Amino acid sequence: MSKSFKEILEKVKALPKKTVSVAVAQDSEVLMAVKAAKEKGIADSVLFGDEDKIRAIAEELGMNLEDYKIVDIKDPIEAAHEAVKYVHDGKADMYMKGLMETKDFLRSVLDKEVGLRSGRPLSHVCVFENKGYGKLLFFTDVAFVPYPTLEEKVSIIENTVEICRAVGIDCPKVAPLTAVEVVNPKMPETVEAAELTKMNEEGKIKDCIVDGPLSFDLATCPEAALHKGATGRKIVGDADVLLFPDIHAGNIAYKAFVHCVEGVNGNMITGTSAPVILTSRADSFEVKVNSLALAALVAENLKKNK
Amino acid sequence: MSKSFKEILEKVKALPKKTVSVAVAQDSEVLMAVKAAKEKGIADSVLFGDEDKIRAIAEELGMNLEDYKIVDIKDPIEAAHEAVKYVHDGKADMYMKGLMETKDFLRSVLDKEVGLRSGRPLSHVCVFENKGYGKLLFFTDVAFVPYPTLEEKVSIIENTVEICRAVGIDCPKVAPLTAVEVVNPKMPETVEAAELTKMNEEGKIKDCIVDGPLSFDLATCPEAALHKGATGRKIVGDADVLLFPDIHAGNIAYKAFVHCVEGVNGNMITGTSAPVILTSRADSFEVKVNSLALAALVAENLKKNK
Repeated sequence: MSKSFKEILEKVKALPKKTVSVAVAQDSEVLMAVKAAKEKGIADSVLFGDEDKIRAIAEELGMNLEDYKIVDIKDPIEAAHEAVKYVHDGKADMYMKGLMETKDFLRSVLDKEVGLRSGRPLSHVCVFENKGYGKLLFFTDVAFVPYPTLEEKVSIIENTVEICRAVGIDCPKVAPLTAVEVVNPKMPETVEAAELTKMNEEGKIKDCIVDGPLSFDLATCPEAALHKGATGRKIVGDADVLLFPDIHAGNIAYKAFVHCVEGVNGNMITGTSAPVILTSRADSFEVKVNSLALAALVAENLKKNK
Repeated sequence: MSKSFKEILEKVKALPKKTVSVAVAQDSEVLMAVKAAKEKGIADSVLFGDEDKIRAIAEELGMNLEDYKIVDIKDPIEAAHEAVKYVHDGKADMYMKGLMETKDFLRSVLDKEVGLRSGRPLSHVCVFENKGYGKLLFFTDVAFVPYPTLEEKVSIIENTVEICRAVGIDCPKVAPLTAVEVVNPKMPETVEAAELTKMNEEGKIKDCIVDGPLSFDLATCPEAALHKGATGRKIVGDADVLLFPDIHAGNIAYKAFVHCVEGVNGNMITGTSAPVILTSRADSFEVKVNSLALAALVAENLKKNK
């Protein structure tokens, strides 16, 4: 079980080297990240995009492009189409967004012919390594599914459990978070959290332990769980996964962690047939590299399970 | 403008001493807090409740009750009724919950004859002093109003602005938070955030600057605001007040701050005719004392404005 990104990186180094296909690679931050990924033994890259621009940026970065395959396509939509097809066809293991609109990138992911559909809805997971928690903490969904229905929450859990298992957490503890730790019929989020718990007990959500509704402190803080006398609960301050009731709760908590809690993170899109890395401009270099390492581990796991 | 609880405490010490009326005072943590409040010059206390039990707990705590007025009422509902009436009648400045059910305590606050109604709906505010932010940050509503309507959001802002002004922030910057910083018609929270902003521009919400929708990072992190090129915004990482879209988003963020971000906090109920302190079992001793100091400052301000 990897408890840190350092451990994830060590695991990835020991695996057969992966390849990441980059859509519209003419972006300095993305090139810096794939350069680091190569140097750290995470993945080689194939760069789809405007070759002249890619070469100009690489020169500025002092980046030697000799060992990189470049596919020169000026139009971003076409570049993404070829880049995702490359993964679809099994020539690369992961797919990463470069300098293009998120909606166009996602359209390529969801392309019925050359995309990376798995049949499950897509969701987003952010993995935090925070000082003091002692293990990785998975936040979902903080960026992708605005107001998940009960069905979508099931898919989000399944998507996230797959990522947890790739990281070596065989039976993650999943906490559907709400403001309170008891069911309140006036708060539908608490009712759904209890339904998810029941579905897990009945074996309809597998390979994990779901226990909700839970407040943030009972899910992540053993002292708080003890103080409030949380008896008969399956999660007592030791959650692996925090399932947020909606994108506002998730995104606000996610950004609070990024900006106010000492630690690092990595994130990816899940529910696809191959790992998809969609980091944002606001993500640091470290986050991009962590995301590539996480995705490489997930790619290996997907291959094993095929 | 107080930028820390230390500064709040210094201000309070310089004011005429306040009195807090405690409902059902036979609780060791509450007695410890009012003892500290007395020692620090925040407030004297009048203790309503079971005198035998109060004396027994005080003895355990080594607390001298000589200077405390005790009103012996065994029944908690009756004790709260008399305790809140004491504030209502102007004999005390603040009202604090002891060992009783929150719903019974709130019923006393809302009592039409002896309670502390102001005509405005009640809301909750938590004031954080966090390492690195450089000033106080007000979270609302994280505990009281589950799914505020637009109208209720206006009241919550007005209630909170009153607390800000008591602390010396004459024109607080209020950020209605959502997952994103742009209006998205599919996300009603973003639409309401924009409506609040417009109402503020039209002078319908006074004594503050409202700018929303805003994401957590744009509201509180100047670097993020700069990085994302937030031009034409009135809040660029320098919010005083974070208005949460609902109790789940608010409570999760609040607990994340309490447990994961270095700092201290204090909290109170607002929208009443006198400050109400409703700390929970989970709140530390420090939080209780901070809350009393904050309430004392607010009490002084209410008196001035009468």
